[in-house]
Amino acid sequence: MRNDALTYAQAHQDEALAGLQELIRIPSISTLPENKADMERAAQWLVNKFAAIGMENSAIMPTPGHPIVYADWLHAGADAPTILIYGHYDVQPVDPLDLWDTPPFEPTVKGDKLYARGADDNKGQHYTHIAAIESYMKTAGKLPLNIKFMIEGEEEIGSENLTDFIANNKELLKSDAAVISDTGMIDPQTPVVVSGVRGLTYMEITLRGSHRDLHSGAYGGVVENPLNAMARLLAKLHDDDGRVTIPGFYDKVKELTALEKEQFAQSLTTDERIMKETSAPALWGDKEFNVAERIGCRPTLDVHGIRGGFIGEGQKTVITAEATAKVSMRLVPNQNAETIAELFTKYIHDIAPPTMTTTVTKLSAENGAVIDMTGPAIEAASKAYEFGFGKAPVFSREGGSLPIVTNLVEVLDVPVVMMGFGLPDDDIHAPNEKFHLPNFYNGINTAIYFYDLFAQG
Amino acid sequence: MRNDALTYAQAHQDEALAGLQELIRIPSISTLPENKADMERAAQWLVNKFAAIGMENSAIMPTPGHPIVYADWLHAGADAPTILIYGHYDVQPVDPLDLWDTPPFEPTVKGDKLYARGADDNKGQHYTHIAAIESYMKTAGKLPLNIKFMIEGEEEIGSENLTDFIANNKELLKSDAAVISDTGMIDPQTPVVVSGVRGLTYMEITLRGSHRDLHSGAYGGVVENPLNAMARLLAKLHDDDGRVTIPGFYDKVKELTALEKEQFAQSLTTDERIMKETSAPALWGDKEFNVAERIGCRPTLDVHGIRGGFIGEGQKTVITAEATAKVSMRLVPNQNAETIAELFTKYIHDIAPPTMTTTVTKLSAENGAVIDMTGPAIEAASKAYEFGFGKAPVFSREGGSLPIVTNLVEVLDVPVVMMGFGLPDDDIHAPNEKFHLPNFYNGINTAIYFYDLFAQG
Repeated sequence: MRNDALTYAQAHQDEALAGLQELIRIPSISTLPENKADMERAAQWLVNKFAAIGMENSAIMPTPGHPIVYADWLHAGADAPTILIYGHYDVQPVDPLDLWDTPPFEPTVKGDKLYARGADDNKGQHYTHIAAIESYMKTAGKLPLNIKFMIEGEEEIGSENLTDFIANNKELLKSDAAVISDTGMIDPQTPVVVSGVRGLTYMEITLRGSHRDLHSGAYGGVVENPLNAMARLLAKLHDDDGRVTIPGFYDKVKELTALEKEQFAQSLTTDERIMKETSAPALWGDKEFNVAERIGCRPTLDVHGIRGGFIGEGQKTVITAEATAKVSMRLVPNQNAETIAELFTKYIHDIAPPTMTTTVTKLSAENGAVIDMTGPAIEAASKAYEFGFGKAPVFSREGGSLPIVTNLVEVLDVPVVMMGFGLPDDDIHAPNEKFHLPNFYNGINTAIYFYDLFAQG
Repeated sequence: MRNDALTYAQAHQDEALAGLQELIRIPSISTLPENKADMERAAQWLVNKFAAIGMENSAIMPTPGHPIVYADWLHAGADAPTILIYGHYDVQPVDPLDLWDTPPFEPTVKGDKLYARGADDNKGQHYTHIAAIESYMKTAGKLPLNIKFMIEGEEEIGSENLTDFIANNKELLKSDAAVISDTGMIDPQTPVVVSGVRGLTYMEITLRGSHRDLHSGAYGGVVENPLNAMARLLAKLHDDDGRVTIPGFYDKVKELTALEKEQFAQSLTTDERIMKETSAPALWGDKEFNVAERIGCRPTLDVHGIRGGFIGEGQKTVITAEATAKVSMRLVPNQNAETIAELFTKYIHDIAPPTMTTTVTKLSAENGAVIDMTGPAIEAASKAYEFGFGKAPVFSREGGSLPIVTNLVEVLDVPVVMMGFGLPDDDIHAPNEKFHLPNFYNGINTAIYFYDLFAQG
């Protein structure tokens, strides 16, 4: 049964690619109101696709925000395990558009890479499961285990409505393991099973200096410039060693154990690798920890953009009425994301200058999670990776944040398997996002192996 | 002759307003390439207008950038003086467009105010002279003195080609006084004769951290974020007292004399006035000087915008590949703008972190100027203001920068009269720019008086 599915998948790679391209062409950017209809189109496309490959109960489940797509197939028998596959059909915005070499929503194959927004994150990744299931259905007409799909539309904007949805649908989503394909590998040969994800607290700071934009010749030097003030404020959020200065920020961060130190020392994430991947002239950060530790188990703070004033070509001598900075913090599993939002807010108000009216807004706060690395699901995933990519996976903490993991672990109390197929240079969230096609095809095979191995226990 | 002109101007205010509105409707934004044709349309409109009111030799004078409009009328007789009237037909960009209450290029009258981009700066201001001349021509058929017009199209982008134009056309532009209506008054009753303008050096700093945008979960804490680094860098440009930290920045700044201190102490530019005009919660700047001194005779440094990353609604956890800050410095007359550009560049490279590839670019550098406050032109202007607005003008250093003043003083060696009709809340360079219509009409009268008073010596 498994081998037939593998043979089918191999013979129908072009068809899988064509299907993925169809899904990618729908510009499902969750954060932009103008793409609301596209979000609905993408959800409907998935509903139709699930029905077409033989899944049942395929439906759009409304939420106060973008809908969740559900589908299941539950005929593997009473003894067969059930897995819940999570994915998200929403994608990041595409700006700056002029840095894309090809249109972001016109998926373009160059060599063994597929370029498009969502090619990796997350359409390409969850499509591996669609193709794997189709391969079983078109050959055996059935699956080795029971499968439930939950594909959300708000991952890129904080999965705001997912927690309620999961809490309200515990019975519907009940399963023996959850599978998420939304993470990366070290390189095309080295898969990673993720053993933990970071949390994320996303904030906005607005400094208002005046009720209107001012001319710098008339008011410079007497009314403080919100951009000058914002620079001073943001500069105070790190000390000279790259540590975050917010009082209490590190309070809950666990010291590394000797064993963890040893594991991180052997990590393939090295200074050289990071410098090669980014062309950074020099690396940065808390020197007490190596780069793998800093990404894997240390919290960080980043400014994502500063709005206000004039950023076009040429000169304009405006003093903006107000400036807004978007700032997020990646948190390690023991930090509470809401507490961090409160500490951040208090600190900003403490250090904000009296020349400004200061507003601090929380956009989202999600805790991180540590994943149990024992049990049949993780074992089946390791073996499946080894069959699919020819190499046993390494275990690693993920630098990114996946609110879903925290939700699944905390609310459904189900083991989570993070079986991702992305690569470090896939430029997710950036122009020219791509997916490595060999990873796509090997990912389909890995999913086929995984269903079978997990069903066998 | 003068009284007939005044009577005509009074009776034809609507016509003057309609003419100004026609000129405003042409969106002559000099800094945007897409408005190039509009720049040409605005120049041609002025050429036609000058011809229509009886000026001669009305022509578009090409430059390597946007053209200059010239026109003259030289039949006042051998003994009559000649004035050169300067203005600019280019305007600032209009973003953020959503903050405008009415379309920026659809001039809208509300009460006694005209709202539009360019309503004050500078179309409304130089149009006072067009209407004044028309009033003489339509009544006496001649002017009391000789007049030359030079209306440029690059004031808002640094008047790059004006210096060469003036240097190459000294004979054409030869005059006994230059008149510039591009400055402000204290309030609708209190005119100002400007006794000095500041220089301006406009720079861009680019910090590049990586060759591509990065995901903060994957690289945060190990590759420095250019926006974090930019904030640190910009924060270092002022000390805690609001003084600029660039070594050598204040070297050429003259100490105030006891007399100047006394004059500034009596200035109408007070803390209360500034706070009322801006709603700033608290003022800012070097406490060694009062606000009038800080605006009038101290150099300043302002950040006008920071480009890079994500500034839309919602969340994006990108680490931008590079960030660019636009920074300008207002200079007092003794500072050399080119020297300041060099000091700035050196300092930025000195303090820029090794994690960044740093580029510093000079966009423009213009010296300030002190104006001779004696002589018949200034005397005639003072008297004309008094007749036009019912109150003698105060003398004041201008906080803004007018490269033209430096050019006229240094190259043509001609006395400059700055006879402006703007108000502090005209929001030039900002959304909802306006012109106070009583100032427009009184400005026309003031110009009519001035030509006559100066002709009489």
